Amino acid sequence: MPRFIKKYKEKVGLPPGTLIHLGRDRSTESRITLFDYNEKEVHEAEITKVEDCFPFRDTATVTWINVDGVHQTGVIETLGSHFGIHPLVLSDIVNTRQRPKIEDYDDYLFVVLKMIYHGNQTDKPVNNTVGKPADSISHINPGTRHNGEITAEQVSLIIGPNYVISFQETPEDLFDPIRKRLTSSTGRVRKMGADYLAYALIDTIVDNYFVILETLGEKVEDLEDELLKNSTESTMLAIHSLKRDMIYLRRSVWPLREVTAFLERGESKLIHKTTRIYLRDVYDHTIQVIDNIETSRDILSGMLDIYLSTLSNRTNSVMKVLTIIATIFMPLTFIAGVYGMNFENMPELQWHWGYPLVMLFMTGIAVSMLLFFRKKKWI
Amino acid sequence: MPRFIKKYKEKVGLPPGTLIHLGRDRSTESRITLFDYNEKEVHEAEITKVEDCFPFRDTATVTWINVDGVHQTGVIETLGSHFGIHPLVLSDIVNTRQRPKIEDYDDYLFVVLKMIYHGNQTDKPVNNTVGKPADSISHINPGTRHNGEITAEQVSLIIGPNYVISFQETPEDLFDPIRKRLTSSTGRVRKMGADYLAYALIDTIVDNYFVILETLGEKVEDLEDELLKNSTESTMLAIHSLKRDMIYLRRSVWPLREVTAFLERGESKLIHKTTRIYLRDVYDHTIQVIDNIETSRDILSGMLDIYLSTLSNRTNSVMKVLTIIATIFMPLTFIAGVYGMNFENMPELQWHWGYPLVMLFMTGIAVSMLLFFRKKKWI
Amino acid sequence: MPRFIKKYKEKVGLPPGTLIHLGRDRSTESRITLFDYNEKEVHEAEITKVEDCFPFRDTATVTWINVDGVHQTGVIETLGSHFGIHPLVLSDIVNTRQRPKIEDYDDYLFVVLKMIYHGNQTDKPVNNTVGKPADSISHINPGTRHNGEITAEQVSLIIGPNYVISFQETPEDLFDPIRKRLTSSTGRVRKMGADYLAYALIDTIVDNYFVILETLGEKVEDLEDELLKNSTESTMLAIHSLKRDMIYLRRSVWPLREVTAFLERGESKLIHKTTRIYLRDVYDHTIQVIDNIETSRDILSGMLDIYLSTLSNRTNSVMKVLTIIATIFMPLTFIAGVYGMNFENMPELQWHWGYPLVMLFMTGIAVSMLLFFRKKKWI
Amino acid sequence: MPRFIKKYKEKVGLPPGTLIHLGRDRSTESRITLFDYNEKEVHEAEITKVEDCFPFRDTATVTWINVDGVHQTGVIETLGSHFGIHPLVLSDIVNTRQRPKIEDYDDYLFVVLKMIYHGNQTDKPVNNTVGKPADSISHINPGTRHNGEITAEQVSLIIGPNYVISFQETPEDLFDPIRKRLTSSTGRVRKMGADYLAYALIDTIVDNYFVILETLGEKVEDLEDELLKNSTESTMLAIHSLKRDMIYLRRSVWPLREVTAFLERGESKLIHKTTRIYLRDVYDHTIQVIDNIETSRDILSGMLDIYLSTLSNRTNSVMKVLTIIATIFMPLTFIAGVYGMNFENMPELQWHWGYPLVMLFMTGIAVSMLLFFRKKKWI
Amino acid sequence: MPRFIKKYKEKVGLPPGTLIHLGRDRSTESRITLFDYNEKEVHEAEITKVEDCFPFRDTATVTWINVDGVHQTGVIETLGSHFGIHPLVLSDIVNTRQRPKIEDYDDYLFVVLKMIYHGNQTDKPVNNTVGKPADSISHINPGTRHNGEITAEQVSLIIGPNYVISFQETPEDLFDPIRKRLTSSTGRVRKMGADYLAYALIDTIVDNYFVILETLGEKVEDLEDELLKNSTESTMLAIHSLKRDMIYLRRSVWPLREVTAFLERGESKLIHKTTRIYLRDVYDHTIQVIDNIETSRDILSGMLDIYLSTLSNRTNSVMKVLTIIATIFMPLTFIAGVYGMNFENMPELQWHWGYPLVMLFMTGIAVSMLLFFRKKKWI
Repeated sequence: MPRFIKKYKEKVGLPPGTLIHLGRDRSTESRITLFDYNEKEVHEAEITKVEDCFPFRDTATVTWINVDGVHQTGVIETLGSHFGIHPLVLSDIVNTRQRPKIEDYDDYLFVVLKMIYHGNQTDKPVNNTVGKPADSISHINPGTRHNGEITAEQVSLIIGPNYVISFQETPEDLFDPIRKRLTSSTGRVRKMGADYLAYALIDTIVDNYFVILETLGEKVEDLEDELLKNSTESTMLAIHSLKRDMIYLRRSVWPLREVTAFLERGESKLIHKTTRIYLRDVYDHTIQVIDNIETSRDILSGMLDIYLSTLSNRTNSVMKVLTIIATIFMPLTFIAGVYGMNFENMPELQWHWGYPLVMLFMTGIAVSMLLFFRKKKWI
Repeated sequence: MPRFIKKYKEKVGLPPGTLIHLGRDRSTESRITLFDYNEKEVHEAEITKVEDCFPFRDTATVTWINVDGVHQTGVIETLGSHFGIHPLVLSDIVNTRQRPKIEDYDDYLFVVLKMIYHGNQTDKPVNNTVGKPADSISHINPGTRHNGEITAEQVSLIIGPNYVISFQETPEDLFDPIRKRLTSSTGRVRKMGADYLAYALIDTIVDNYFVILETLGEKVEDLEDELLKNSTESTMLAIHSLKRDMIYLRRSVWPLREVTAFLERGESKLIHKTTRIYLRDVYDHTIQVIDNIETSRDILSGMLDIYLSTLSNRTNSVMKVLTIIATIFMPLTFIAGVYGMNFENMPELQWHWGYPLVMLFMTGIAVSMLLFFRKKKWI
Repeated sequence: MPRFIKKYKEKVGLPPGTLIHLGRDRSTESRITLFDYNEKEVHEAEITKVEDCFPFRDTATVTWINVDGVHQTGVIETLGSHFGIHPLVLSDIVNTRQRPKIEDYDDYLFVVLKMIYHGNQTDKPVNNTVGKPADSISHINPGTRHNGEITAEQVSLIIGPNYVISFQETPEDLFDPIRKRLTSSTGRVRKMGADYLAYALIDTIVDNYFVILETLGEKVEDLEDELLKNSTESTMLAIHSLKRDMIYLRRSVWPLREVTAFLERGESKLIHKTTRIYLRDVYDHTIQVIDNIETSRDILSGMLDIYLSTLSNRTNSVMKVLTIIATIFMPLTFIAGVYGMNFENMPELQWHWGYPLVMLFMTGIAVSMLLFFRKKKWI
Repeated sequence: MPRFIKKYKEKVGLPPGTLIHLGRDRSTESRITLFDYNEKEVHEAEITKVEDCFPFRDTATVTWINVDGVHQTGVIETLGSHFGIHPLVLSDIVNTRQRPKIEDYDDYLFVVLKMIYHGNQTDKPVNNTVGKPADSISHINPGTRHNGEITAEQVSLIIGPNYVISFQETPEDLFDPIRKRLTSSTGRVRKMGADYLAYALIDTIVDNYFVILETLGEKVEDLEDELLKNSTESTMLAIHSLKRDMIYLRRSVWPLREVTAFLERGESKLIHKTTRIYLRDVYDHTIQVIDNIETSRDILSGMLDIYLSTLSNRTNSVMKVLTIIATIFMPLTFIAGVYGMNFENMPELQWHWGYPLVMLFMTGIAVSMLLFFRKKKWI
Repeated sequence: MPRFIKKYKEKVGLPPGTLIHLGRDRSTESRITLFDYNEKEVHEAEITKVEDCFPFRDTATVTWINVDGVHQTGVIETLGSHFGIHPLVLSDIVNTRQRPKIEDYDDYLFVVLKMIYHGNQTDKPVNNTVGKPADSISHINPGTRHNGEITAEQVSLIIGPNYVISFQETPEDLFDPIRKRLTSSTGRVRKMGADYLAYALIDTIVDNYFVILETLGEKVEDLEDELLKNSTESTMLAIHSLKRDMIYLRRSVWPLREVTAFLERGESKLIHKTTRIYLRDVYDHTIQVIDNIETSRDILSGMLDIYLSTLSNRTNSVMKVLTIIATIFMPLTFIAGVYGMNFENMPELQWHWGYPLVMLFMTGIAVSMLLFFRKKKWI
């Protein structure tokens, strides 16, 4: 992927805050949607010119601006400068290789998350993940990784006193239920502030990790069955592939712990006390997700050990078959060889019962060998 | 288990505090029992309508409400709203995939525990745990796991100033001794408050971990005997299965350390000073359980290493048998082959003692080979 | 060991502080000895009725009560109630499955230790530890473990302002030198308080860990010799057995660090400043013991790796022997077979020099094979 | 490399602060370049006599002195004594075996970094890193390591109130973009102080780690392909070589975390508040780099496991081929041997259909063996 | 080594502070040298009677008393009692099995270090370390270990306000450069106090670790070459031996971190502010040494993995040779056997071209087998 290397090389030494998009390239335009609401009314709009959302900034209502696509650095820059966002923050938004983090800029909080969801996974077999190693970018950035089925993208949130700006890489997202809750007048979300909206967005992302973990858990189960019944080299590769998925997942989730802990402790004045109890819930979920990932890793390691033991066992039993065959037939062939010798003076050859006696003797040898192996529990 | 996945998918994006039962489904109704007592008298009742237990809330006596079955979210909701329980707490109660935790809501403490006990284990052999890998849910939630013999269920406690509400998944529990101590007038439990009752419940659950560990310890012992005498692939699988049991057990117990430490430090005003000394005892027990689990894991790892060494040793000795046989009989067969050649001019064939001499020569080769192997300590 | 399981099952749900002896059963009675001393005089007595030692409690002199045998819960209870010991402490004393710990009850300190010493080890070979895996109790409680040679028992200390009560499981102990120092009038121990006596007892126990480590170290050395000269499967099992000994030892010593650190910090008013400097020394020793255990574990792990490498090397060289033999004799046997064919028209058979030529040819093949193997450094 | 040993031996016991160059020897002279700038003007100069840069020290403008080559201890000493640098600092500058660190000397900060960049890597194959183990110095100092492609050198920074002095080992560096930004009048760097210049230098070095990681990531990818398609011993060695690269990289980057954290916390008065936000960005990048290294190490470990499994699988399948051949042909050869015996009385030999019958029988044996192996899934 | 065990057994239960020498026994007397100096003059003396150095204690000049040999407990005791050293300190000095530590006794600091240097190593090959496992004492005390080449001895320092007393086990030491710096009038050491002298001694010891590490690094390099070219079992044992050296070295250096950190923090009033900057340098070096040790351990572990992989690869290729030979010659021998059968009715035997045809057929089989193996990349 020389494109990325070139980009990084270009980036080295540039002034900080220079907006250089590092991530998936897209041909489509960024798409901006806006929600402006309070308890009584809600206003939903699709913004075509970024300047159209500026007026909403100073209203008393809560404003949610959602930007799909961070590849148009111009749009990000215009938006950022109007809302007074630090250039380094904008730079982090367009470089989708961040780890999850939170930064407190007094006037606003900047949160980076990884949204992980299923792409189009339905009709692919488990082993599809095998043989398609993650591309080189994935070593740097799990954000642009398409490991067969699971897709990760970076979501950046800017949480202001009465606005939330969210940036995503693609239009696909998990936020539709929240949009529905906003438009229906009954939800708690309408009554509370921007911090609660931010909570709702983060909660949705974290909740979805459980869905991902369940899918991976099913694969683990399938592999376990395969392992005990009929393991092949591809089983081993699939286990390794899942283990690597867990490594990436862990990397996306682990720093989230600090993010949610920061929010829960409520050190920023932007987070109200009533919201903190909900953030503690998110924190709990994060811990649970990490816990599940660790357990899965332990289980997958155990499965690899079982695989290797099974392999040794197989070699062992192949060896046994060979040894049994060789041990039985080598002496017999030798005896047959002896009586195939052409010495003139071999009295046994003239005996009338010589042939049957030799055959009997050979049978005796074969049987005693078999008994020996039975005693050794090889057969 | 598509049912669960569907549920998690449904849950994503829902308003927080929405009660969605995640755990075992049951057809029976929830069952509510109530104890109301002070030093002088005790009142025991089975509640059929959840509203019947509301009056006990405001009495000066200590009230213990025990709810069997958390699948009827309506019951939980009614109870919760009357006692002023936060919706997130109720949501955690019905989602039985929590890790053990404690949350301080000032008016009440919310504690989640995992109760682990033996199901109907009597007549199953050790190896029964093999080949029945935990279902996919177990990767997410050890609470719904039936690994042959050990069953775990979630117990949630709400500890108020003068009441304790406990929620269990099934009617089976370990609390009968406490019920007896409550009805008999002599026990310390009758003289003390709701915090002591909560302690007694937690203590019972923790004490039972020792029983579980002893049973697992016995299995470890059996496997050790098997390992040294006659290990097979199923021994290895059984060790792995036990190791995984330990992983799950550890996961249930490890967070308990924080729970009991929180209670012992007595940061909540709901915990009296006299009770704290008992809670320290529970904390000690928790540490001891964790210690035992870690030791068992080390021992099981050691056993797997022994298994693999044994396997290598066996391959080695199979190889030796093969090599000995081949090394003895290949030269002999070759010699027999030589004298089986049909050259017209082979003077040895006409010698009178040719045949016995060759046989003697072959015996010499065989004997010297055997001596060589004896020197190499192969036989 | 169903007895213990039964006991644990009985214990679950009982009121806290119920005295149930968990540990070795003994038929003999508990034996109580008493030392009462100050700088000027010393009084030594064997107590037959536990009440006899009550008067010493309120004297200004330092009193040391040593109880051998904790299976008679009645004795413990009487003693405990007179000295105002909390029921939970008494319960911990009779349940010999505690990990080392310290508890501060203001009026007295409660310390649990593991005393480890050699039983009757003289005439047993090293490999005796092999094949006799620790019994199931040992997984729960190293206290009742007899791994061939090393015995561990629980020692509980109650350190009051002017008395020390020590509880042991068996009459065998390491305290005789202290008894001598007490009866001889010159020692520092006579001039100082109960805290110094407690220090002396703890110091003796910790010092003895070095003796144990030296014995284990010698075994490690013997096994190393065996490993490099003539390792067998029993070598591997002996290494594993030692490794497990280290696990148990570590488990007994590791928590001691906290115990001695607590005492050294002198947070309790029962510990005088002058004694603290001695307690720092014990703390140092504890760290040293842990350090030695960790190093030994590393070395034993390395030895297991060497064993496995050696095993692979052996399989390799067995394979080589087989391959050399097969590679030399298979072609030769084939050639002999060819000239053993009964075709009527095989001109070579009629050649006068046919037989010697073939023999020469075969020798040539054998020699070139040997040269090939020498080049490959197989021989 | 006896030279270095000699040097270290010489160094032992010398007074601290004695300047002894430990690192690559160079024949060329040190080269000093100087930038002196404020918002309005910039002065760039190549210094031939070290004393020429002394006047710039006391100007109000920001001065950046860059010294290429630390082997001329005289130059370093003169410069150091004029700027009041502690002898221990100078000693650390010329000894290029430091780990990254920061030291606060009140008047100035002393920072040590490792600059890692690509040498001339274009036309070398991946496996070139194999077989060329790092030289002995590299175990002590990654700074002088040339592992085929990646070169590391030590960069020392002295950050004063209005000057930055940077020391490098070689003239090659990554600072050209910063020089350009300094000479062009528009950049932020011209408006800010010496601390921002230091930030820019550190940022450039850290940014370049990403470039290195991308290159290594590509190699990992290539090796993964090789591993799954056609792994040989050299694949394994290349993985190990990359793993070791990661060890060295980690060692260079890990301590950087503390360096950047120290700067970010702004405990020194030399770091202005406005610069700290940029330093947090560097800190973030450092964490990201460490994260990537850890993930790569996990992946490489997984790849080694795959390699070993593949190897076992191969041995297994080689064994199977051998066993199949032996199991089929040994019985057949035996039967042929039987009918090659020279007994006079072997009635089968006279049968007219004897030969075809035996051939049929042998075919039957061969076929049933093949069926047996098919059933065992060996073929 | 029953001597040591006896000693430890003797030690158990003795009053604390009893001086019992644990370490190497020596027949020679302890040797005491004394330096007394200030900026202007220096007095050097060899002390024969320990009392001779008492007068220097109360002079204003700095006094350095160096005691070679700690086996004469009487000397230590006399010296200690005059300087007011706590008996526990004296006991630690003569028991040379301490880990590095620092203790603050207000009036003086007590520091324990491990001095590691090369004995007479010149003409021994690398593999000499193999087969000579550390003696049993070494498991307890690296201080008395002679692993072929590296020798460790305990150095104890007592740092008073104007004196330093150093205790070594043997006369060999690394302090000659310091002696020279003391006698030459120019050095900084003459101008500064006892704390600086102590720093100089510690610095010398720490600096020497680098020399040791370089020597070990060279061995690692040699082993790497051996590993890639021609590894044998002795290579593996040498790697293990080096790994163990690293374990011991790490154990000697790791606690030093705390020692130097304590000194650097300057919590004792005996350490002046000007000296602290030098102590920070020692601290840095200690970290660097630990860093190097960890890296070396990682590299050695990697080398062992390479060794094992190589071994598996070799077994694999031996197997391949065997299988190729067997697969080619077994069918051929079988065919030869068929035509060696003595059936009367075997028409092929009478064919004129029978023999050449069969030979051709066999050649065909052999060639196709070879092609099959070439396709499988076995040859």
